[in-house]
Amino acid sequence: MQLSVRAASAVVEAKPKTDLILIPGGKGKATHMKKGDLLKVINTHGKQVVDFWAFSTSEWGKEIMSMHHTRNALQKMTPQAGDTLYTASMKPIMTMLEDSGPGVHDTTAAACSYGLYVLQIGEEAAKEHDSCTNNLYNALAELDLALAEDPRYGYYTPAPFNLWMNVTDTPDESGYCWVMPPQDQKAGDYTVFRAEQDCVAAFSACPWDIGDMNGPGGEPQDCHFQVFSA
Amino acid sequence: MQLSVRAASAVVEAKPKTDLILIPGGKGKATHMKKGDLLKVINTHGKQVVDFWAFSTSEWGKEIMSMHHTRNALQKMTPQAGDTLYTASMKPIMTMLEDSGPGVHDTTAAACSYGLYVLQIGEEAAKEHDSCTNNLYNALAELDLALAEDPRYGYYTPAPFNLWMNVTDTPDESGYCWVMPPQDQKAGDYTVFRAEQDCVAAFSACPWDIGDMNGPGGEPQDCHFQVFSA
Repeated sequence: MQLSVRAASAVVEAKPKTDLILIPGGKGKATHMKKGDLLKVINTHGKQVVDFWAFSTSEWGKEIMSMHHTRNALQKMTPQAGDTLYTASMKPIMTMLEDSGPGVHDTTAAACSYGLYVLQIGEEAAKEHDSCTNNLYNALAELDLALAEDPRYGYYTPAPFNLWMNVTDTPDESGYCWVMPPQDQKAGDYTVFRAEQDCVAAFSACPWDIGDMNGPGGEPQDCHFQVFSA
Repeated sequence: MQLSVRAASAVVEAKPKTDLILIPGGKGKATHMKKGDLLKVINTHGKQVVDFWAFSTSEWGKEIMSMHHTRNALQKMTPQAGDTLYTASMKPIMTMLEDSGPGVHDTTAAACSYGLYVLQIGEEAAKEHDSCTNNLYNALAELDLALAEDPRYGYYTPAPFNLWMNVTDTPDESGYCWVMPPQDQKAGDYTVFRAEQDCVAAFSACPWDIGDMNGPGGEPQDCHFQVFSA
């Protein structure tokens, strides 16, 4: 008999605050969280990149989960289970408690955007293409939220924590490249975060379909999340 | 006789628009640039990290040189001579024309900040310590500029292009680490950029004195820059 070495998830004992919520493949979704709430993000089909942002509620539009400040604080490129993610003023906003998969995530890529698709597939095709940047703003709008009265945050959208995104930066291979998730990442893999302050968490199941970053074929897949009381 | 393989600098033929301007060691400085102007940034003593930002003048506070969007556009971690740097809406803002040194720069680290120094050296010592984040806002204030009427940009300061910053990310060595510049980087090494739109360029000769990122001893050193007409 083979024993599982995986610890029981922290959310097993926790009380659900929401149902299992769909992040439709290629689209976005957002939710409110209270300090201490747990968030389980599920890679339902196993090969989908999920862009993940968090925005403080009490200092809306000011305190934002920041990848570059998190790298500074952790002295680490990519947070792992046990690591806290920070705002630019170095206030904790999320702690990654669990990661059921191989731990391949990314903090370097910007959310894909209309401007990036213009560079990649041209202006006409870009107009018809979803983007994680637009998904973020649409998801916030569903909660009657916007990042600012003026459009400046539309211009400098914060870098997301790109869950399950596999970015290589190996000079001897292909250099900086968005590649297929590792083989041992599987359907149902999940990450669990604890909110360190009242915040809004937002997600986009990335619609990037150039290459196989989202698995063979590149078709964006549905993912899910659920919020629990601690 | 050994022949130099280095091409003559583009600025040799260009007409100076400014004197050689000091970036005092550990402090910041900013300047206006017109589209097409050339900017020479000089590592006067050879081992100093210079944080470098650019902000569009015509869309002040909106169009900002963005490291994560530049990585997306270039599909590259670090721009090299010949590469263009972009705003979040993928508008070109700077092109790196020349790089006299070994080409070691960084796009991953946030500007050092009060919050980072609190984590590193404690609250009391942090209060007395300069930071690249404060240097940026002070340098802009010298030009009667601020990034916004409200303090939100103070909270989410854009990641700078960290000239001459040597960041390792080698799992088999020390992991993500801010280390000494390479041996072949020398006093007088320079980079040349062309402004791709009217903008403000801002610099901080980084005051980080923990470890030897700014050379042995870590004492911040003066650097210089000069602006030329094309």
